[in-house]
Amino acid sequence: MENNREIPYKIYLEEHEMPRQWYNVRADMKKKPAPLLNPQTMQPITAEELEGVFCKELVKQELDENTAYIDIPEEILSFYKMYRPSPLVRAYCLEKKLGTPAKIYYKFEGNNTSGSHKLNSAIAQAYYAKQQGLKGVTTETGAGQWGTALSMACAYLDLDCQVYMVKVSYEQKPFRREVMRTYGASVTPSPSEKTEVGRRIREEFPGTNGSLGCAISEAVEAATTQEDYRYVLGSVLSQVLLHQSVIGLEAKAAMDKYGIKPDVIIGCAGGGSNLGGLISPFMGEKLRGEADYRFIAVEPASCPSLTRGVYAYDYCDTGKVCPLQKMYTLGSGFMPSASHAGGLRYHGMSSTLSELYDQGLMEAVSVEQTSVFSAAQEFARVEGILPAPESSHAIKVAIDEAIRCKETGEEKTILFGLTGTGYFDMYAYQRFNDGEMGDYIPTDEEIAAAVAKLPKI
Amino acid sequence: MENNREIPYKIYLEEHEMPRQWYNVRADMKKKPAPLLNPQTMQPITAEELEGVFCKELVKQELDENTAYIDIPEEILSFYKMYRPSPLVRAYCLEKKLGTPAKIYYKFEGNNTSGSHKLNSAIAQAYYAKQQGLKGVTTETGAGQWGTALSMACAYLDLDCQVYMVKVSYEQKPFRREVMRTYGASVTPSPSEKTEVGRRIREEFPGTNGSLGCAISEAVEAATTQEDYRYVLGSVLSQVLLHQSVIGLEAKAAMDKYGIKPDVIIGCAGGGSNLGGLISPFMGEKLRGEADYRFIAVEPASCPSLTRGVYAYDYCDTGKVCPLQKMYTLGSGFMPSASHAGGLRYHGMSSTLSELYDQGLMEAVSVEQTSVFSAAQEFARVEGILPAPESSHAIKVAIDEAIRCKETGEEKTILFGLTGTGYFDMYAYQRFNDGEMGDYIPTDEEIAAAVAKLPKI
Repeated sequence: MENNREIPYKIYLEEHEMPRQWYNVRADMKKKPAPLLNPQTMQPITAEELEGVFCKELVKQELDENTAYIDIPEEILSFYKMYRPSPLVRAYCLEKKLGTPAKIYYKFEGNNTSGSHKLNSAIAQAYYAKQQGLKGVTTETGAGQWGTALSMACAYLDLDCQVYMVKVSYEQKPFRREVMRTYGASVTPSPSEKTEVGRRIREEFPGTNGSLGCAISEAVEAATTQEDYRYVLGSVLSQVLLHQSVIGLEAKAAMDKYGIKPDVIIGCAGGGSNLGGLISPFMGEKLRGEADYRFIAVEPASCPSLTRGVYAYDYCDTGKVCPLQKMYTLGSGFMPSASHAGGLRYHGMSSTLSELYDQGLMEAVSVEQTSVFSAAQEFARVEGILPAPESSHAIKVAIDEAIRCKETGEEKTILFGLTGTGYFDMYAYQRFNDGEMGDYIPTDEEIAAAVAKLPKI
Repeated sequence: MENNREIPYKIYLEEHEMPRQWYNVRADMKKKPAPLLNPQTMQPITAEELEGVFCKELVKQELDENTAYIDIPEEILSFYKMYRPSPLVRAYCLEKKLGTPAKIYYKFEGNNTSGSHKLNSAIAQAYYAKQQGLKGVTTETGAGQWGTALSMACAYLDLDCQVYMVKVSYEQKPFRREVMRTYGASVTPSPSEKTEVGRRIREEFPGTNGSLGCAISEAVEAATTQEDYRYVLGSVLSQVLLHQSVIGLEAKAAMDKYGIKPDVIIGCAGGGSNLGGLISPFMGEKLRGEADYRFIAVEPASCPSLTRGVYAYDYCDTGKVCPLQKMYTLGSGFMPSASHAGGLRYHGMSSTLSELYDQGLMEAVSVEQTSVFSAAQEFARVEGILPAPESSHAIKVAIDEAIRCKETGEEKTILFGLTGTGYFDMYAYQRFNDGEMGDYIPTDEEIAAAVAKLPKI
């Protein structure tokens, strides 16, 4: 453990060491996340009600708070082997550059064509849709990682994939769109003429650039009005955290293999899919009193749901068609600034992570984007990986922690999640390289105004 | 060997199994490649003459035909550990899709930020420049992979990196440019006002889009007119094949570990860096009579130097400032069509590969780009990796071989090089997705006209 020379730059598990079950952290929580509410009745939603929108097996996973381990189906395990195990990397070069006594590790999820961890849940959701005999799935995408991941999963399983892509992204990120098309997905700029809600929004707001909330509404309508289609979502939901637990399970297995115990675990947090997945098995140990860890959620200062939001029931989408959940939220009407970390521009947070945070089991910090891009650049130059802006939020805080160790002389072991690569984010890097990037922090008044519109429950 | 179940999807060597020496295939060639010629005297060039342009140690490697194994310096080994070993992947999903009895493997070099194998030589060339106490290096880049790789290597070693990027690429691929800038390189659109040759060309051809030949000339001028700078090149040279032998050495070690022997080894060929690196150790066995393999070089039908060129002395660059080498060439004045595989648009071929081909030790085929993109798409959908257009040339021929095995029932083992990813090539994919991609095959007359202008030696 103390002999650094024995720890390789990258730890890859053998295939037979890969997890064969997902871990459901809710099973070890004494106080569970609050139940989802039906937006019509404001009563806890039933499985039957959810099954009109989501696949049956996924509804079961969504509502299951008690089963700790769920078998990963063989076909999903095979797909995982195409791009997993992902490496656990010892950041020797970054440590040297910082001159820190800290030991820094990162779990790198970017080595697949979707460019992020999103594929872990996309293949699971597509698999259950296929198992149910469906023709296809619908979804929305903003920045494009989730849409890309779902396209890949659907191409593999020969399932139709319909993606509603926020219009401004569709136009500004034509290459993301082309990756999805190469994988056979149909990509529609939202709002579109294809759905009733899309037509209504276009009439009401001529020339609108679209929004994630609107794209969700269109995707849900498309799923519920076509026979044998269901809607799928890439974050926030408990089922997504379940699938993403594969990140944490692999990281823990790799660390256990070399006798490494992290002191602090850091992840960026938008809807919570990556952070929830990374920390799950470690949090399980903490909940069971077997070990202690510090957990830090890193969010953008421009969209600080945990650090400046309220813990309340709220709509998950702007169109208010999805179930409500109790979460840290800035209000579903909160409009985050056009920051360059599209994957973190979500008004709320996973109900599980929200509850853990509320119980004081997890910390949260917010960071500004120019400092995030500085950290990204420093990291890229010594570690050789060009990180996604979202992932770079975790890098920023990991570097801060390592510098603190340098000051105190502590040899802490830091683990952070490097969720993806920035190959499709070069416009943001260009703004940074040209010194044209700014920061935006919402005022207390702006947040108060959005929070004031929360539903009264 | 026959038990497929024992072979994992991806074979990763352990760090201690990684090669610690490069292999110089020329050492095992009875008839060596013809010597480089000085463009002024047309006599074999001396080390001293080359050292004005290239680093001393690299000149030594360039001219060394007899040392079979050369130690990889420790600092380069450390850098390799950041992104190597690269996986040897068993293409189980592709085999299943094709229904072939063939066993298909590929060595995947795309899992690093440069997106290709180019980093293997970039770090070596940057390292020797640093060792020599130089301030920086200059180079040209067309598609951008080489420039990106060199930027990464220079950032790691704190060496200045000046890239002359063909103007049309600079404008059409702003994101490639931004990756290089993020790694601290200065990127100049070529032809520029910075060099004499650049100014001359701009005067002569106002509004020109630039060309690789012109960018090389500018980079060489920049290297020779600044104190403590040298010029570096990403392909064609023997030193590059030497560094790239790490691909083949790793592939062979991984295959040996599992008792796998390839029957046929396939790689795309532009200047020859990837193909030369991949086949080197296998070719060594063939040259020494220890084993037999089929080797297939795949080139674009639009730029068919091996299959339709002549074996003769030619200039390596359009500006005629670099040494001449004997190679299969279409003539340095040959203008390949604007195909989407920028990395394969080179008029000549590595002198080592040219000599091996001339001796009948290697085969070559040319393929058209629409068939290449069809293969790329088919591959991407089942193997989950979006390949670069260059790499997809090898995929196309590997699939053809596998289909032939299906027809004959042969259980051949196929190995091909997957040199990189296509994240910065989505414009090409878009053309393909939209059905707007064409093919271009030069006429015999066009080739004859270019070949007629070869220097008389």
